[in-house]
Amino acid sequence: MSWRLTAADLPDLARGATLLGTGGGGDPYIGEMLVERVLGGGSITILDPDELADDLFVIPTAQMGAPTVMVEKIPAGTEPTLSLRILEDHLGRRADATMPIECGGINSMIPLVVAAETGLPVVDADGMGRAFPELSMETFAVYGVHGSPLALAGERGERVIIDTGDDDRQMEWLARAITIRLGGVGHIAEYAMSGADVRRTAVPRTISMALALGRSIRLAREQHRSPFEAIAETLAPTLYSHVRELFVGKVTDVERRTTDGFAKGRAVISPLDPADGGTFEISFQNENLIARRDGEVVAIVPDLICVVDHESAEPITTEGLRYGQRVRVLGISTPEMMRTPAALAAFGPTAFGLSEPFVPVEHVPVERIPVEHVPVERSAEAARV
Amino acid sequence: MSWRLTAADLPDLARGATLLGTGGGGDPYIGEMLVERVLGGGSITILDPDELADDLFVIPTAQMGAPTVMVEKIPAGTEPTLSLRILEDHLGRRADATMPIECGGINSMIPLVVAAETGLPVVDADGMGRAFPELSMETFAVYGVHGSPLALAGERGERVIIDTGDDDRQMEWLARAITIRLGGVGHIAEYAMSGADVRRTAVPRTISMALALGRSIRLAREQHRSPFEAIAETLAPTLYSHVRELFVGKVTDVERRTTDGFAKGRAVISPLDPADGGTFEISFQNENLIARRDGEVVAIVPDLICVVDHESAEPITTEGLRYGQRVRVLGISTPEMMRTPAALAAFGPTAFGLSEPFVPVEHVPVERIPVEHVPVERSAEAARV
Repeated sequence: MSWRLTAADLPDLARGATLLGTGGGGDPYIGEMLVERVLGGGSITILDPDELADDLFVIPTAQMGAPTVMVEKIPAGTEPTLSLRILEDHLGRRADATMPIECGGINSMIPLVVAAETGLPVVDADGMGRAFPELSMETFAVYGVHGSPLALAGERGERVIIDTGDDDRQMEWLARAITIRLGGVGHIAEYAMSGADVRRTAVPRTISMALALGRSIRLAREQHRSPFEAIAETLAPTLYSHVRELFVGKVTDVERRTTDGFAKGRAVISPLDPADGGTFEISFQNENLIARRDGEVVAIVPDLICVVDHESAEPITTEGLRYGQRVRVLGISTPEMMRTPAALAAFGPTAFGLSEPFVPVEHVPVERIPVEHVPVERSAEAARV
Repeated sequence: MSWRLTAADLPDLARGATLLGTGGGGDPYIGEMLVERVLGGGSITILDPDELADDLFVIPTAQMGAPTVMVEKIPAGTEPTLSLRILEDHLGRRADATMPIECGGINSMIPLVVAAETGLPVVDADGMGRAFPELSMETFAVYGVHGSPLALAGERGERVIIDTGDDDRQMEWLARAITIRLGGVGHIAEYAMSGADVRRTAVPRTISMALALGRSIRLAREQHRSPFEAIAETLAPTLYSHVRELFVGKVTDVERRTTDGFAKGRAVISPLDPADGGTFEISFQNENLIARRDGEVVAIVPDLICVVDHESAEPITTEGLRYGQRVRVLGISTPEMMRTPAALAAFGPTAFGLSEPFVPVEHVPVERIPVEHVPVERSAEAARV
């Protein structure tokens, strides 16, 4: 069912989307601000994917770049809608709706900015079901809708169109080059498709799921319940039904470099009580890719590896990781459509150069997963990360 | 007056254009081959710029990239015309003619490839009056026609459009990024303009001048006359009236690196007889930029610094420079429209980070220029460089 989103929903949506962003997708606070600035007291229509007309014309919109740059280079404001207009002009057709390409603090919000500015509705779905670092890593592409032509808008009004036919990796390769030369962030419109294509290729209802997640975390805090139990309860009836706590500890090392237009690195998390022994390591490229406990893989892309504050469950993005943070690491199962052989070829371990095979997070032997919960000691004041 | 060019003209044209390319503009042999393949026994109409209808629609075409890559990465063949078609489709208007953007072994030829494939005529003019390494270094831009939108075609059918408004340097910056990711070479259509704009902004009759230059060099060789005198005689009545021999010697050192999509480096030339003393050094970025004799500047961009075989006068491109080559270095004056303050801002010394001021090659004190001619010892067999 379609529904209307208002500014009051944004903090919950940003929180939930950032959790699903699995370390990437950008800073939720910036995302919120961008939407609030244009939405004011208005509302945005969110369309349920099952109710789309077959020939509805949908143009997804997003920001691309390294999150480490995104937090420092705030958009001028005109770019998101400009990217949509460039693609509309090129295709000679106006969009009936926009849609996210991924979940995340920024990229769940950019389509809302476009919607608030243009009056277009937003489709409650996306092409990653989480965040991924590259434009070719889309369920859209896996199931036959290609990204080209892609439109890219720069903050000084630069207009770029890239068409690589069916080759979405080449599209990513060329668009990334432009984004780097625009200073590390660009705004894009791509994967234009019909309503029928959305139903066939998109991960459905991720906006409403993110909103429900963020709301459940907030309500749990307010009601002095465990936000981690709230997360598990919220996800249980969805396509993301398995939630496992992979580790509890504090961040003791972060290596991070912004290279080739990405934020790449690793974080080491050590037990809160050194007597517990064992260490936990996460490698990331914008998003968290693989988590190892004492060298054993406990979760791997495309499953979600989410680092959150150990008390408030506030999600922590990869560029927000800091020495000394006390965190929990959650593993969340992705929908089956993201785990097919074709999907794994596009955004499974080998797509990131990892030699480890994909093992669903719910199948990793339980004995390797710490099952104890560190008790929630106080009603968590959700400190903004 | 308009005239027709046939395959028989290509070797002379390539030689003359390569001389005017002042070290850049690509390998003349590859340029010739590209045209011969599509021209066969046909001919191409070359339009005199003074005779263009005011509203003739001209789309210049070219290859961009580092010459060091161009000699190894031969175009698939479809790219030059594809770049034209991309821009035509984007603008919604078919071209009436194409035109070079610069003189050089490759870029005097690419518009001929397009002409041979499409039947379009080619305007006898260009926007550099020589070769320069960057797309913003155009008399077109200096006199008010801007490069955007630019269309870029890749060998796998990639289609890219870049529109940076009036900012031609940003257009170059973004197009270079794409070219680098296409492997170092891309094919472009840009600076679309009217016939009236051509007359106002282009360096006129550089194709016919290149052809006349190449022919005069060949005829001088055949008639056992000095090809250097033939060059001077050919250029005397043109906009490039001053020719000075700056040095005679052998190449004793070449530093060359392909970086940021350009071939950058320097060549040292030492006297043929070490007793003569003195050394000569040329710095280049694709093209020769500055020539110093014993540390004193004797020629500087935008004047032409041309390295040629010391006997045959065959031009040698920067990527063709080799240890031991016996060469003469010629300085040739550029047209006045390339020496105005606005022109020097676009492609004079400061545009290349050089602190030396522009001094017209004909004003450099004569005593610093060697005036002796090494005699032409035998009828020069024009060894292909």
